[in-house]
Amino acid sequence: MITLTTDFGDSEYVGAMKGVIYSICPEAKIVDLTHNIRKFDIRHAAYVLSTAYRYFPKDTIHVVVVDPGVGTSRRGVIIRTEDFFFVGPDNGVFSLIGGIEEVYEITFESKSKTFHGRDVFAPIAAKIECGSKPAEFGTLTKDIEKIGFNKVKMKNGNIEGEVFCIDYFGNVIMNIKREDLSRIGIEFDVSFFLEIKKREYELRLLESYGFAEEGELCCLFGSGGYLEAAVNQGDASEFLGVKGGEKVRIHR
Amino acid sequence: MITLTTDFGDSEYVGAMKGVIYSICPEAKIVDLTHNIRKFDIRHAAYVLSTAYRYFPKDTIHVVVVDPGVGTSRRGVIIRTEDFFFVGPDNGVFSLIGGIEEVYEITFESKSKTFHGRDVFAPIAAKIECGSKPAEFGTLTKDIEKIGFNKVKMKNGNIEGEVFCIDYFGNVIMNIKREDLSRIGIEFDVSFFLEIKKREYELRLLESYGFAEEGELCCLFGSGGYLEAAVNQGDASEFLGVKGGEKVRIHR
Amino acid sequence: MITLTTDFGDSEYVGAMKGVIYSICPEAKIVDLTHNIRKFDIRHAAYVLSTAYRYFPKDTIHVVVVDPGVGTSRRGVIIRTEDFFFVGPDNGVFSLIGGIEEVYEITFESKSKTFHGRDVFAPIAAKIECGSKPAEFGTLTKDIEKIGFNKVKMKNGNIEGEVFCIDYFGNVIMNIKREDLSRIGIEFDVSFFLEIKKREYELRLLESYGFAEEGELCCLFGSGGYLEAAVNQGDASEFLGVKGGEKVRIHR
Repeated sequence: MITLTTDFGDSEYVGAMKGVIYSICPEAKIVDLTHNIRKFDIRHAAYVLSTAYRYFPKDTIHVVVVDPGVGTSRRGVIIRTEDFFFVGPDNGVFSLIGGIEEVYEITFESKSKTFHGRDVFAPIAAKIECGSKPAEFGTLTKDIEKIGFNKVKMKNGNIEGEVFCIDYFGNVIMNIKREDLSRIGIEFDVSFFLEIKKREYELRLLESYGFAEEGELCCLFGSGGYLEAAVNQGDASEFLGVKGGEKVRIHR
Repeated sequence: MITLTTDFGDSEYVGAMKGVIYSICPEAKIVDLTHNIRKFDIRHAAYVLSTAYRYFPKDTIHVVVVDPGVGTSRRGVIIRTEDFFFVGPDNGVFSLIGGIEEVYEITFESKSKTFHGRDVFAPIAAKIECGSKPAEFGTLTKDIEKIGFNKVKMKNGNIEGEVFCIDYFGNVIMNIKREDLSRIGIEFDVSFFLEIKKREYELRLLESYGFAEEGELCCLFGSGGYLEAAVNQGDASEFLGVKGGEKVRIHR
Repeated sequence: MITLTTDFGDSEYVGAMKGVIYSICPEAKIVDLTHNIRKFDIRHAAYVLSTAYRYFPKDTIHVVVVDPGVGTSRRGVIIRTEDFFFVGPDNGVFSLIGGIEEVYEITFESKSKTFHGRDVFAPIAAKIECGSKPAEFGTLTKDIEKIGFNKVKMKNGNIEGEVFCIDYFGNVIMNIKREDLSRIGIEFDVSFFLEIKKREYELRLLESYGFAEEGELCCLFGSGGYLEAAVNQGDASEFLGVKGGEKVRIHR
């Protein structure tokens, strides 16, 4: 199985990649993970991939094409973990993958300078799906490019974190996990304060969206395990005026 | 075959559901019915499902995840009709399905409070696709939640109906069928009056969009059999300023 | 394999077409080429199809439903080339296909006046996929409707061309190929002038997006082989204020 994660939206670029894959490996099963990554947003791609890739069957090949540096000297990589393969640009999109066992730097043969998704990554994924080994496409290398993912700081009973990215629903995903909140005594149904962009909001930590009033700003743990601010039936990123990368401070 | 109808747009939440299904039932065939339901719009989901589900092969399992009440006490259901299965929240999205034979209330085992699509409904659909019986996941129950679908009234030569929902093209779908119009003598190519939001429009009933002038407001019967107001190559919902639920009055 | 190219977006109309296909030919493999064609934009459909259809396996059936004239007297056609089949309205969407060997005019039996995609083209594609011959659905005819694709003119060291269409990223695709630019001495990394809507821009011809500064207007050859104006990480069609069809003039 091959999954595709891109910022191509519902465009023909996705269709062409699928045509290439089926032409090389007709029995491939292709699944769209999402093509709705914010354009050129490597951070968003890394997050989305990290929340979804584990749900696929063993040996799934995850192809990611969010690639603002295509055609420049940025490398292409094939990554092997215990359960999965990953193919795409080495620009940080694979930063949040766990259990990396091998990384291959792709030796480019294609003359394509604008569309490695179709001309490099899709063919490699198709060939691996049909039995090729990663080593046929490049050479072993040591590490991959990683994007900064700042750790949470605890300071005088405050959690200092940041907005990691915004999801499709406008929920504001932060680099904060349940154990961080527990350390300052915030549990479900407890009110607390969230400071962001110099404004402070009092809100509740809820178990799910459905417990919030319509329009209420609240916090909950998203399906990826991270704290997110949400507005029930609304768009929290608009409400808070954030885009990703902003600092946040949380206290009781 | 499993179809998915959600308000997730082209997001990774759809991809994760597919990963779960393929992990449980690798030979499943998954079809996206649409992920473009207006967010949290149960009425739109019910309409869309009703216009499309019959086109699928016998035994297709239709999964619907438009679920503003996820994590609260709203039930999950498995519905069996003569030809199909339906799996999703019991919040009205299945209101327009015909020929219901059995309804099972799902016994929740999952701890997921935010994403029953991935953690409850997708696994159940996958297991049914691979041979499980609905009774393995819950207990027989009597009925499902139904959303109000007001009947058309005939009054002094007027049809009093309402806007059911707006489709992807901005066409304004009403709860009015061909026989209703016939009762007051409106046939194809006849002009008549549509009153909506205190304004009255004179327009023609056409056999298809292609017979309208560019930009002309007209009415026709959509592919679901309901009367819809359309603007040729335009957006009738914007033109009329409606969102769904508005009263309409039609007369010659 | 059957591909679908429509202007339906992510709507249930796509889902219904797939249901119809699977009901007729359960073993069909369906690929979304794109559903993001600009609404009713035949030119955009023709371009998109031309850049992608060759990437699919031999005998792929490409169905295109961008069909503002549905229900009127416009014909439906089945086209056979050496490698592919094409099914859809005869309104120009197939203008840029190469190597046409046979064209069949579809004999309509359906009573559907609004949705030939679901009621005519999808069933025909499904039957061809499962072994039927095009001749079963219509009669041989001579030619298809072609939309104007003006040739580039060379005049006093100027190239006079036009905007063909805008792609998903807002890149402005012109009817100009690499050999045209070479004739007036414009090669990679050379600056030149682009005149459009009475304004003149100086920009560079680059090998790929990645070599441009963020926000820089530049030109490059897109994956379809045509010259396109792009803004790195931006939207060139907005920047230039164009929608398709505008005249352009290029000189050194």
